Amino acid sequence: MRIDGLQYANWSETIFRQMREGGLDAVHVTVAYHETFRETVLNFEQWNRWFEAYPDLIMKGLTAGDIDVAKATGRTAIFFGFQNPSPIEDDIGLVEIVHTLGARFMQLTYNNQSLLATGCYEAEDPGLTRMGRQVIREMNRVGLVVDMSHSADRSTIEAAEHSERPIAITHANPSAWQPARRNKSDAVIRAVAENGGILGFSLYPHHLKDGSDCRLKDFCEAIARAVETYGIDHIGLGSDLCQDQPDSVVEWMRVGRWSKEIDYGEGSAAAPGFPAMPKWFNDNRDFGNIEDGLAAIGMNADEVAAIMGGNWYRFFADNFGPKP
Amino acid sequence: MRIDGLQYANWSETIFRQMREGGLDAVHVTVAYHETFRETVLNFEQWNRWFEAYPDLIMKGLTAGDIDVAKATGRTAIFFGFQNPSPIEDDIGLVEIVHTLGARFMQLTYNNQSLLATGCYEAEDPGLTRMGRQVIREMNRVGLVVDMSHSADRSTIEAAEHSERPIAITHANPSAWQPARRNKSDAVIRAVAENGGILGFSLYPHHLKDGSDCRLKDFCEAIARAVETYGIDHIGLGSDLCQDQPDSVVEWMRVGRWSKEIDYGEGSAAAPGFPAMPKWFNDNRDFGNIEDGLAAIGMNADEVAAIMGGNWYRFFADNFGPKP
Repeated sequence: MRIDGLQYANWSETIFRQMREGGLDAVHVTVAYHETFRETVLNFEQWNRWFEAYPDLIMKGLTAGDIDVAKATGRTAIFFGFQNPSPIEDDIGLVEIVHTLGARFMQLTYNNQSLLATGCYEAEDPGLTRMGRQVIREMNRVGLVVDMSHSADRSTIEAAEHSERPIAITHANPSAWQPARRNKSDAVIRAVAENGGILGFSLYPHHLKDGSDCRLKDFCEAIARAVETYGIDHIGLGSDLCQDQPDSVVEWMRVGRWSKEIDYGEGSAAAPGFPAMPKWFNDNRDFGNIEDGLAAIGMNADEVAAIMGGNWYRFFADNFGPKP
Repeated sequence: MRIDGLQYANWSETIFRQMREGGLDAVHVTVAYHETFRETVLNFEQWNRWFEAYPDLIMKGLTAGDIDVAKATGRTAIFFGFQNPSPIEDDIGLVEIVHTLGARFMQLTYNNQSLLATGCYEAEDPGLTRMGRQVIREMNRVGLVVDMSHSADRSTIEAAEHSERPIAITHANPSAWQPARRNKSDAVIRAVAENGGILGFSLYPHHLKDGSDCRLKDFCEAIARAVETYGIDHIGLGSDLCQDQPDSVVEWMRVGRWSKEIDYGEGSAAAPGFPAMPKWFNDNRDFGNIEDGLAAIGMNADEVAAIMGGNWYRFFADNFGPKP
């Protein structure tokens, strides 16, 4: 079982075929960065067209059971998520609506302050807002998972504590390994893990030690250390693969419509675009390299299976339906 | 089994309880008259709140199987529909989106010309539009039923012929019985029935012989004549019950935002509001009167069961899922 906890590729038949070659049974895909509700619906519509056009390669994923169907029929189940709460606008009723349309993860913030919580690029983090507390309860009720990948520390810890169900950091690494703004402190990862949540290890070069030159062995050893520290149940993969995207898309991610100025995020004026991927993880066909790498550093088969997809499978099974 | 093919009441706990007292297992409720997509979603959100508030009385209906669940648990299954294609705006991708959100019927027109077809109040009826033909195919694909209750004759006959699945007239009566603008000619009903569709007999007084003074026996005999003419499989009920609605709502139905002038529809300047219901059908508690009335004019038990809900049940089972 191979499950990727986050991708935002420039989707195409080529990429869907690479998912099959890489043995991916399920992928959490980003459907919105800064989109309004109506714009997000246009993105759902685009996915409906892909599901209709490529029924032999992909299928819509709503439950963990859909991963079994995908596996049995040689397809990849696509699960929807948002990197920002912009799709629900200021309307808590949209939480259930987007869940009905298939959304299964929603970040409470994307780098900036949102109506719900604080992003990791803000100078101050006052924690969850009034609406944020209400929306987490509603997300808990319907089975929409709180994702704090781009959130600030206090907001993340408060979300983990306020949420009645496990939350996720779908794509980030421990800042102890690589001190990027988007990577997570020990206190944050601990709060998420203690609440039953999962940290998905990211392959985005700005999140890796030595960036694009990061060695597979170092990446796998960082995973092994996280397993020792937080427990085998709480670690997965969230590649953050942004394959084939033009630089205009990284600008949309970072700037949306909130600024007239360029914000370089984890890049810089000298290197504004997507950095080169590590040689051993160029696209979806390379998940086998990570699986081999984890075994090579001495992880046993059960642990490797948990990291590669077993943990996400259990998390999906527990958290995508109405609150029991 | 009792199924009502259309209502648009001013929904409340009182009305939901009356549905239970009337033994209604399912109701097709109107969710939009002239609403945009976003406004329609607000109406879906309101229904989600009612489902959460009254879980012992009502439940969301998506398939015929949900009617069995409702019946077994003493509730009424609520099925959504639109009286106008305004919720899909000019975007064919919204057909699948509204189906995912629960819509199961959509009228192609409401009295006026739409992007898809012609309404029954227009002077000219040029038939299905280019977009109308495309949208019917898409509705066929996902399992959203074409409803032509407020459409003009040629458009209705073309819809019945162009559709690859049965269509419905959820709420109207034969014009041979009562020559109202909204009632349907023999040619129209025949086209719908020959395509496997259903005509739901309306209790809206303007559609009844003698209006509010219509006698139960006359209503039941009109049903019996339709059964003889079009076949027992093709007739049901669609009460058009608009219980507890203020006159402002009948104005919204008729005028929406398309005119600055008052349009009285089937009413008049002297009687602009909702007419009084017949004594024997005041609200949802009175479905038993119709059942008794049908038996009293000599219909056998199987026929009565088909009219009261059996036909709609079979129609729902065949037409609410993806095209086989």
